[in-house]
Amino acid sequence: MPANVDRLSAVRIVLVATSHPGNIGAAARAMLTMGLRRLVLVDPRRYPDPEATALASGATEVLEGARLVATLDEALHGCVLAVGLSARPREFAGRVLSAREAAGEAIAHASHGDVALVFGTEMSGLSNDELARCGVVATIPANSEFASLNLAAAVQVVAYELRVAADGGEVWRAPRFAPATYDEIEALYEHGSRTLAAMRFLDPQMPRRLLPRLRRLFARAGLEREEVSILRGILARIDQRLGR
Amino acid sequence: MPANVDRLSAVRIVLVATSHPGNIGAAARAMLTMGLRRLVLVDPRRYPDPEATALASGATEVLEGARLVATLDEALHGCVLAVGLSARPREFAGRVLSAREAAGEAIAHASHGDVALVFGTEMSGLSNDELARCGVVATIPANSEFASLNLAAAVQVVAYELRVAADGGEVWRAPRFAPATYDEIEALYEHGSRTLAAMRFLDPQMPRRLLPRLRRLFARAGLEREEVSILRGILARIDQRLGR
Repeated sequence: MPANVDRLSAVRIVLVATSHPGNIGAAARAMLTMGLRRLVLVDPRRYPDPEATALASGATEVLEGARLVATLDEALHGCVLAVGLSARPREFAGRVLSAREAAGEAIAHASHGDVALVFGTEMSGLSNDELARCGVVATIPANSEFASLNLAAAVQVVAYELRVAADGGEVWRAPRFAPATYDEIEALYEHGSRTLAAMRFLDPQMPRRLLPRLRRLFARAGLEREEVSILRGILARIDQRLGR
Repeated sequence: MPANVDRLSAVRIVLVATSHPGNIGAAARAMLTMGLRRLVLVDPRRYPDPEATALASGATEVLEGARLVATLDEALHGCVLAVGLSARPREFAGRVLSAREAAGEAIAHASHGDVALVFGTEMSGLSNDELARCGVVATIPANSEFASLNLAAAVQVVAYELRVAADGGEVWRAPRFAPATYDEIEALYEHGSRTLAAMRFLDPQMPRRLLPRLRRLFARAGLEREEVSILRGILARIDQRLGR
């Protein structure tokens, strides 16, 4: 269950020198889908802009709360961890983590203070100097021949990993119906054996192969009480047709 | 290392009754960034369409190879596993997995044959009948108050999880430089203690707090040989200035 979802409120998404306001809006939407709300824009080329609002598609609260700053330093002020995203971390000599590992580390640090996930420009990403200001660099595993995640897609993947790291990736589970008891299941197999033998589908002297396979199948499924009733109903119907 | 990346070629991404061709293009791009190439379109409203091509942004090979079919049945023909994506799996009585678990299961099945990840319409997702045709339902953890991932964003997250499941999430690691040896590190601490004591920063009778903290810091970093040289160079410089 949502163990550390509140830690998402300590996460800043920092976009550096974004060229297209539409990408800022799409990033805001990607953030809010995962419960992130704190957006910091470092020297965006055009902002605010109607295109940003259009692509935010309902996530305007994120845009309205966005903080505009002039430098990366200002954006990272007060953070206990800054993670720079890079598709080409080969030029960086420090620690390089996968997006998943970085999200885990960010959520762990978020109990101590603010953490930042930093994204560079659409064309060239973060500069070496900007990466060096981040304690850790993270990279999203991708197809090396077409590693063209756009900015909002990269924010979506990272925001998703942060959410999974924060809430343990819990999803809703279907409620199970009443399971069949051992006795009910054994009575089903007994009934089934009799009927299959009567149909000459099962040789009572040589039941070895068929029944274990059926047992295995139903065991994997985990039979419910009502399912046992249905199966026994079918068997009873067969019995009736066979005139037993 | 890329253990099972080839299994991605057994993965079909199935889009059911997509309304906006732009979403088909953006989904194709999201697929190719993660190395997925097999797109199946079930009864799209408009396709082909210049908007799809524009948003594919270079991933036209995926669009050109896309298979157009009339029904979900045709799309799933020959699959050993079909996973239906749903933001509201509460109406589904079968197995519900997280996107991560489903990706793991899909890649495991992909050694036996084709697997399909199935996405519904933009407005209402997959119908109950469509979900029931899928062996498994998967859901992407999200902010329940704004679970408005668009179609391409959902495809991006799932494609990313498939890639991580297939290649183990390996990313490039920065090469480490030659680590310092135990002796070099101990010599550094000894030198440091002397110098700090000479500076009257360290009381040789009461070294307890400071040195362990420094040891802890450097141990966490994992000192390299060259870094030890640099630190000893600094200490030697201090010694010199102190006139020792």
